[in-house]
Amino acid sequence: MGIDPGTNVLGFGVILVDKSKVHLVDMGVINLKGEKDHFTKLRRIFLETGELMDKYAPDDIAVEAPFYGKNPQVMLKLGRAQGAAIAAALSKQIPVFEYAPRKVKMAITGKGAASKEQVKTMLEHTMDVKMDIKYLDASDAIAIAMCHFYQLSNPLSDECASTNWKQFVEIHSERVKK
Amino acid sequence: MGIDPGTNVLGFGVILVDKSKVHLVDMGVINLKGEKDHFTKLRRIFLETGELMDKYAPDDIAVEAPFYGKNPQVMLKLGRAQGAAIAAALSKQIPVFEYAPRKVKMAITGKGAASKEQVKTMLEHTMDVKMDIKYLDASDAIAIAMCHFYQLSNPLSDECASTNWKQFVEIHSERVKK
Repeated sequence: MGIDPGTNVLGFGVILVDKSKVHLVDMGVINLKGEKDHFTKLRRIFLETGELMDKYAPDDIAVEAPFYGKNPQVMLKLGRAQGAAIAAALSKQIPVFEYAPRKVKMAITGKGAASKEQVKTMLEHTMDVKMDIKYLDASDAIAIAMCHFYQLSNPLSDECASTNWKQFVEIHSERVKK
Repeated sequence: MGIDPGTNVLGFGVILVDKSKVHLVDMGVINLKGEKDHFTKLRRIFLETGELMDKYAPDDIAVEAPFYGKNPQVMLKLGRAQGAAIAAALSKQIPVFEYAPRKVKMAITGKGAASKEQVKTMLEHTMDVKMDIKYLDASDAIAIAMCHFYQLSNPLSDECASTNWKQFVEIHSERVKK
């Protein structure tokens, strides 16, 4: 299960790996925009991610962990949102892993600076599903889960990208030297 | 109950207010320095602060919330530690309040830039107790709880300091114009 924790919208995505084929189980968002109180947001993150974990009993939780480029105040709020989701997992004895956004994008698309739309398109291709355009936070969460799966499949790869060069080449055939 | 959440040492302090007299119930630290793994730290914060809440059933939780002066990476880690402790409280339906460090120091000592030692000395005087010098994270947590009590006593005070000018004057008698 991948989680993209934000203070306004939290994306989640659940995948099932069956004989190295990846199936999409569920994806969606927890919309926190209507909540004015910061602590109400944190309570909802803790409780609702916990309910999802109870529902799907994931083996692992993977979260996105940005490490730079935001101001300290934003990072503190983001850290709290992450902390609430991580606490939900750890309180249920589910191991937690974290990946930098650049690493997730690299794993899915082969480009560390890929857009959310490009990540979504690649995921649709890889999993042979159509994702609703309004769920870009959710497709990001699926990407985090996929990145974790790639990492588990090939722990030596620092980019967790090595297993999907085939898909990358399929989509970006114009970039292949003939 | 006051909590000073850090990624290496978490301080906690429990006070009991009885007819506006403040009693020290418990204070201590959760030492996380020996834990190498960040997620192990977060699990311990969530579980052990939760155990303290079960033990003392506090009416409110007050946490210290620094808002500036650290780099984004440090703030993210700190936010996660806070998020784990806050999630423990919110999952037990205990309201959470936050105070900036400067506000806490102002409330206790009358000086926003007071040292931890000055805060401790003022608390010892106010509560008529002796605090172990090695527990400065714990005395900080008591200060946060006291700040919340002052705020509840006088919600109009933005400094949550108005009820303790008497103590301030007693300790800093040299600063009073005769």
